[in-house]
Amino acid sequence: MAVYTKVSAEEIDRFLSRFDVGTLVSAKGIAEGVENSNYLLETTQGKFILTLYEKRVDPADLPFFIALLDHLARAGCLVPPMIADREGTKIQQLCGRSACLITFLPGVSVSHPTPDQARATGRALGDMHRALENFVPERRNSMDHEGWRALADQCGPAQLDDIAPGLAEAIAQELDHLDQYWPDDLPRSAIHADLFPDNVLMLEDRVTGLIDFYFSCTDIRAYDLAVTHAAWCFSDDGTEFYAPISRALLEGYGSAFPLSEAERRALPLLARGAALRFLLTRAYDWINTPADAMVTRKDPQAFLNRLQHYQNHEDIFTA
Amino acid sequence: MAVYTKVSAEEIDRFLSRFDVGTLVSAKGIAEGVENSNYLLETTQGKFILTLYEKRVDPADLPFFIALLDHLARAGCLVPPMIADREGTKIQQLCGRSACLITFLPGVSVSHPTPDQARATGRALGDMHRALENFVPERRNSMDHEGWRALADQCGPAQLDDIAPGLAEAIAQELDHLDQYWPDDLPRSAIHADLFPDNVLMLEDRVTGLIDFYFSCTDIRAYDLAVTHAAWCFSDDGTEFYAPISRALLEGYGSAFPLSEAERRALPLLARGAALRFLLTRAYDWINTPADAMVTRKDPQAFLNRLQHYQNHEDIFTA
Repeated sequence: MAVYTKVSAEEIDRFLSRFDVGTLVSAKGIAEGVENSNYLLETTQGKFILTLYEKRVDPADLPFFIALLDHLARAGCLVPPMIADREGTKIQQLCGRSACLITFLPGVSVSHPTPDQARATGRALGDMHRALENFVPERRNSMDHEGWRALADQCGPAQLDDIAPGLAEAIAQELDHLDQYWPDDLPRSAIHADLFPDNVLMLEDRVTGLIDFYFSCTDIRAYDLAVTHAAWCFSDDGTEFYAPISRALLEGYGSAFPLSEAERRALPLLARGAALRFLLTRAYDWINTPADAMVTRKDPQAFLNRLQHYQNHEDIFTA
Repeated sequence: MAVYTKVSAEEIDRFLSRFDVGTLVSAKGIAEGVENSNYLLETTQGKFILTLYEKRVDPADLPFFIALLDHLARAGCLVPPMIADREGTKIQQLCGRSACLITFLPGVSVSHPTPDQARATGRALGDMHRALENFVPERRNSMDHEGWRALADQCGPAQLDDIAPGLAEAIAQELDHLDQYWPDDLPRSAIHADLFPDNVLMLEDRVTGLIDFYFSCTDIRAYDLAVTHAAWCFSDDGTEFYAPISRALLEGYGSAFPLSEAERRALPLLARGAALRFLLTRAYDWINTPADAMVTRKDPQAFLNRLQHYQNHEDIFTA
């Protein structure tokens, strides 16, 4: 988490002159989100986020993200839409990068959510899915079930076993299981696909924003709930399962957008898939990121622990 | 520039509960300043900076910085004082580090100052020096003239010549010159000692804040103007001297706090010292920082160029 591209105050000033957002009062580089460069701007008219897209976001995907956020904002969901300049343009160029000016949302990301906060988040996710039922644009999930085996191969069995003895075999068995049972008849929709607590802004028990849609894509809708479950219902290291958080998250979701019986039955499998997805991408990053790089490596073991919990406790989604 | 210590929203909430500053609305890790961790906080009552002091600031120095900022704020200078909690305490502990809650100041740091901005900065520096005439606490300048030879020795002649052929000899000769002529009879005072454009907040041509006092110390007062001159009056790489910026900075300073004849005569020498000081610390950091570290290495050559300009153009302070 760092600022990769330094933008001078003069350049930000010039950039803002394309918009009707007032003049610059303060600009601070902020350290958050995926590998983009972000500035928190205050102008005479309000607060904004300026994002410059670094290598991890493909500029070709920006129109999808913009359409999604516009759709959600129009439906009353608390998301941060991109702001159009006077000519109606939302994707700008700044310092050689694609850049957007984005609505600022208040709220903080909690590190240790309470059940009430999990319930509110589940409800916000359900509200979002309801709003997306009539959203047409599609984007392939670059981290979808079809890609997991290739990702494991790219890691390599020896490197996986260096992370944890037996990890390569555990992943191979899980891939076989998921390939055999992965559902192909559940409702699909645009999903967030990365709704970790980091990406939910809250004030006390109230959700004030869902942010960081740069993994959003079209996939099994209930898989989004499974990802959120894996992200919210465990201790950071994955060794502790928080049943009250789990119950509250599922309740909150169901109160906004009830699951079908088929979706409910699939949740244990979808959750195993979600745990495997983050296990694989973390393992890949672990293997391919130098230990002293600017990006903090996240321990893959935390999601192996979650995977094993889901393997051994199929009943947690019905308890 | 990064956030070194991650503080959760819950910890920030608890921290703020010691103060009468309202409740947390937003918290963003910001990437700026020396190697501290900084958060821009918004509460129901206003905006604040939360700073956690990492290894580069000695907690034993915090009382000096606090007294200095309090003194300046009381005198009407635009600086960001530390805020006392309900018990009157300003130095807190957070995540195992000394931490302070600091007044937020609006404004942005310009990258390419105009003469009007340099004049305003000179005036603000002069106003600050005037306000500090009756400031009593002292702190030794850890980067003062007496320490430069040791710093050069720590770099080592071979490593210096790796940066630029002949650099070790150029530094040795300059050290001899400065040792012979360095003044010991000029007025001393608390000084900022690091007033680069980064550390001046502005709105258009108006100074809205002088920040980052973590090098402030007691030294020759006119040396502070020399440091500011070296920081403001050249292109980043030191190859171009900006005479209109130089004239405006000196005019602005003189309009707030006229130099004595002895100070004016000493400026060329003090400026050579200022250029050497940053040349040496940058060379030391260059030699001792891995190329892929989180901290951006700044090129020492930029201050060798300034030093050579000061050596060859003694008249720039009188022109």
